[in-house]
Amino acid sequence: MTIILYDLAGAEADRRFSPFCWRTRMALAHKGLAVETVPWRFTEKDKLPQPNQGRVPVIRDGDRVVHDSTSIADYLEERYPDRPSLFGGAAGRAPTRFVQNWTETVVNTGLVGFVVLDIHRHCAPEDQAYFRRSREERFGATLEDVVRDREARLPAFRASLDPLRRTVERQDFVSGSAPAYADYVVFGAFQWARAISDFDPLAADDPVRAWRGRMLDLFGGLARRAPAYGD
Amino acid sequence: MTIILYDLAGAEADRRFSPFCWRTRMALAHKGLAVETVPWRFTEKDKLPQPNQGRVPVIRDGDRVVHDSTSIADYLEERYPDRPSLFGGAAGRAPTRFVQNWTETVVNTGLVGFVVLDIHRHCAPEDQAYFRRSREERFGATLEDVVRDREARLPAFRASLDPLRRTVERQDFVSGSAPAYADYVVFGAFQWARAISDFDPLAADDPVRAWRGRMLDLFGGLARRAPAYGD
Repeated sequence: MTIILYDLAGAEADRRFSPFCWRTRMALAHKGLAVETVPWRFTEKDKLPQPNQGRVPVIRDGDRVVHDSTSIADYLEERYPDRPSLFGGAAGRAPTRFVQNWTETVVNTGLVGFVVLDIHRHCAPEDQAYFRRSREERFGATLEDVVRDREARLPAFRASLDPLRRTVERQDFVSGSAPAYADYVVFGAFQWARAISDFDPLAADDPVRAWRGRMLDLFGGLARRAPAYGD
Repeated sequence: MTIILYDLAGAEADRRFSPFCWRTRMALAHKGLAVETVPWRFTEKDKLPQPNQGRVPVIRDGDRVVHDSTSIADYLEERYPDRPSLFGGAAGRAPTRFVQNWTETVVNTGLVGFVVLDIHRHCAPEDQAYFRRSREERFGATLEDVVRDREARLPAFRASLDPLRRTVERQDFVSGSAPAYADYVVFGAFQWARAISDFDPLAADDPVRAWRGRMLDLFGGLARRAPAYGD
């Protein structure tokens, strides 16, 4: 049965730009599961299965509804044990959580300061006021002020990627010779940024860029075919 | 048969302060292998099995000699497959490399700027000139200058531990409910610092400190019993 994924979309329905939804999208492809995505906007709480927290990803798999990318990954792993594993068992799951915590505190945090105004620009008109208000409250600054010095912050951001850089210089994927959930978590952040912004956070010769290219090639170019900027 | 570990020591033979040797020490304990450590100083190349790069850890296991903490971990895993696994298989080994790369680029790099002068102070007299010359060359500054503003750097260092903090807030160990090699790698860095310096990089209520305490308790308090500062 086809799984339904509620997936954050911009003004253009096929521009998908949630780092968390991209984790789920890649995880579903890894499991080889058929998926139908439903474009969803920030202010469409009523469109999600009830009850909900007004956040995506949410999946509906038959009569099961699962919220939150981490819970969805755990659900898919348990529900479809005969499909390729996302973690390789408990021994892979625990350090994958470390990679996820690194991604959320270093990569997502760094990237949002580059692209938050571009997200606003791509939001559906009915989402823009909500997005601006909630993010300006979080940052304590206007979106314009948040991104103003982004060029100056680029070297420090690139340096903060050293753990990832050193890893993918020495092995093709964070998860080793083949990709798994740790890769999808990190990739989700980069795919979010490139889906929404032409501000390029990676130098041309960065090994992280080469890894991102390998990720874009996966599953018949699933992420490469999606509307985005650059390569 | 007892494994010999050549282990970096200070002027006091039982003060062991290599982050890389601590990884190996903990890995040997994890495998439940008998070990005899040989205190080794920076300038004692002749004391190591030949040929050598003048670096520890080195182990001798019967007639096998293995250099480098990563190679030693791989060797122990392969040679003693019936003992508790350091990685839980390939699925754990790959993301453990990410944890290692994070430790080396963030934790070791941060801590050395706090403790490098204290290392010098604890070095055997015959090592001090070598240590000062090689480290001052690396830093392009005197050891005194490297540590001068360490208090000012402490908040940024503590913030850089967020990925570890968030992980050990939610699970007892980096490797999940029980420790494994990823924990020993990160712990090696903290044990190195506390072996050599009374400069405390962790706040009293930091979850990272609580995790460090759990690590100190392992294997009958192996690391807690070693000469060191603080708890």
